[in-house]
Amino acid sequence: MILPHAAVQTPVFMPVGTQATVKAVPQHLLEELGAQIILGNTYHLYLRPGHEVIRRLGGLHRFMSWPRAMLTDSGGFQVFSLSDLRKVTEEGVQFRSHLNGSSHFFSPEHSIDVQIALGADIIMAFDECTEYPADYARVRQSLDITLRWAQRSKDHFAAHRDERPWPAHFAGQTQSLFGIVQGGMFTDLRRESAERLVEMDFPGYAIGGLSVGEPRALTREMIEATLPYLPEDKPRYVMGVGYPEEIVEYAAMGVDMMDCVLPTRAARHGLLFTSEGRLNIKNRRFAEDQGPLDPECCCMVCARYSRAYLRHIFVTQELLAAVLNTLHNLAFYLDTMESVRDAIQLGVLPALLARVRARNNGGATGQP
Amino acid sequence: MILPHAAVQTPVFMPVGTQATVKAVPQHLLEELGAQIILGNTYHLYLRPGHEVIRRLGGLHRFMSWPRAMLTDSGGFQVFSLSDLRKVTEEGVQFRSHLNGSSHFFSPEHSIDVQIALGADIIMAFDECTEYPADYARVRQSLDITLRWAQRSKDHFAAHRDERPWPAHFAGQTQSLFGIVQGGMFTDLRRESAERLVEMDFPGYAIGGLSVGEPRALTREMIEATLPYLPEDKPRYVMGVGYPEEIVEYAAMGVDMMDCVLPTRAARHGLLFTSEGRLNIKNRRFAEDQGPLDPECCCMVCARYSRAYLRHIFVTQELLAAVLNTLHNLAFYLDTMESVRDAIQLGVLPALLARVRARNNGGATGQP
Repeated sequence: MILPHAAVQTPVFMPVGTQATVKAVPQHLLEELGAQIILGNTYHLYLRPGHEVIRRLGGLHRFMSWPRAMLTDSGGFQVFSLSDLRKVTEEGVQFRSHLNGSSHFFSPEHSIDVQIALGADIIMAFDECTEYPADYARVRQSLDITLRWAQRSKDHFAAHRDERPWPAHFAGQTQSLFGIVQGGMFTDLRRESAERLVEMDFPGYAIGGLSVGEPRALTREMIEATLPYLPEDKPRYVMGVGYPEEIVEYAAMGVDMMDCVLPTRAARHGLLFTSEGRLNIKNRRFAEDQGPLDPECCCMVCARYSRAYLRHIFVTQELLAAVLNTLHNLAFYLDTMESVRDAIQLGVLPALLARVRARNNGGATGQP
Repeated sequence: MILPHAAVQTPVFMPVGTQATVKAVPQHLLEELGAQIILGNTYHLYLRPGHEVIRRLGGLHRFMSWPRAMLTDSGGFQVFSLSDLRKVTEEGVQFRSHLNGSSHFFSPEHSIDVQIALGADIIMAFDECTEYPADYARVRQSLDITLRWAQRSKDHFAAHRDERPWPAHFAGQTQSLFGIVQGGMFTDLRRESAERLVEMDFPGYAIGGLSVGEPRALTREMIEATLPYLPEDKPRYVMGVGYPEEIVEYAAMGVDMMDCVLPTRAARHGLLFTSEGRLNIKNRRFAEDQGPLDPECCCMVCARYSRAYLRHIFVTQELLAAVLNTLHNLAFYLDTMESVRDAIQLGVLPALLARVRARNNGGATGQP
């Protein structure tokens, strides 16, 4: 995937940098980890420091000093999950900031304006993220509005794409707008949403509205039901997933891009992903464990620190715990996805899948 | 100063790693910053994870994976400043943990046992840190007990020094015990404390009981009154100081070692030290400031990030703010001390002093 700021090898996992920082990790360490592309959240950056500030400072890449690729979401998901007093109309969404209650309005046009100002390599159409559970009639109505908003996003982007904060055709490439499939947990609505979106011809497609509280088997079913209707020669992005074993499964199904707060958020709560399963570092059994977090991991944390030390700094609520735990979890996710890419190149993906499934069924640790 | 884990160039500033971590900074970045020796706090490490745990894990160096030199304080200062319900007798101090109220007893012998178990390169005699203000009679009585405790610390260390967790005569060197001068704010008592301590013959001497709330001119006066009575051919260490301009002044007076939580603690509150004076990064005037924190600084933060970005992550309470602010402040302190060492070698210390004083009197920012 050739983007203005980087050539991204897929399938790719994208760490989430909500407020223009992947929480607790300095950018140079994120580069060392091998992150190719990271996310910014439009809703948060619109509120603070404001998209016009970021535009004046040269865009998100310059603002946060991140030289590789970036993607911004449309703000839709956060408006629906974080803000208060939402009012959705055909025109857009009226909402109140979760920070101070101030009133704001997001339309497809406004979301695109904000995202152009932020200047990520990939930006997303403004969508309504349907709540879970939702009945058929509600999902159909929501899907329709998302499709009309997708067309408006596309039209507005076509008219304003040259307003991004970096030079036209940076490295021969420009900003791209992806469409988002909705359709709740109904396979026929997923198909319809995908087909009508593909007719609009976006350079890439996301599957949204998942990881909203549904059982994980249903997540997988919806991805399986949608992928066949999205073109194989364009990037296919599943938003907001998943556990390490899931990102391998989804990549094997043909998903090219995934993002999730799980590795970073879990790290801050002491939940760590390893080749031996999940572990909670505050567990007393690690108090004198001199071994590395994950004996199979080559990350800078596993190379240097013991489980005993990581437990100590977590239990004593030291800031370093968030830093080191996040570094390890991100390394685990990024290395996992790299092993998927290697397995695809070597033609041994089925063997990798079998190994990941066996590890998962081994169930050393279970759900967090 | 040749220590078991490092040859330390003096004068040296020692970052404080209270709970076996210099707050928010991974060890490899601390090495990159050029930290030669760091502190651990005996009181905190005794409570969590416990000195016997650290002994079993190979000592503090191995526990926290820090290959260079370390120093532990005696626990005295924290017992007097943090713990509740202290009761001081000739034998030692009964106190309650600030964490859970549990009851503990520290004597000179116990402090030394704990410090031997932690295994720092330099350990400190157990002292009573006299409160400020304190009258002459109180300071004299406190000084006397500190001197008796110094002798007991020395005797106990002589009998148990081989119990440290690393091999005897690591790199041809072993653990060293320093004595601590007290004497409140009375120059004659400072002199008496120093002379009687020097009679006991320690390999290094600290000036304690400063930075306890007294005016800064008095701190300087006490250092000036004490230094002449400490041998020039042994390390002279002033505990718990100071501002950047002060550490230059004290080094010029002949102080070899200093430690202070100021650069790390101030960083977490957004107070940053620069060649142009102090600045508070949350100030609105930095909101769109694309310049580096300190145009004269070569640290990894100033090389990469703008004031606008540093303000944004501080205002949004991102963990990265603590990381980057701490990295910069430590770089500023360590680079300042390096410039003092360079100036001494080049014979231009008076010029450096004049520059630092002029900068300080410029008063761009004043007291934090």
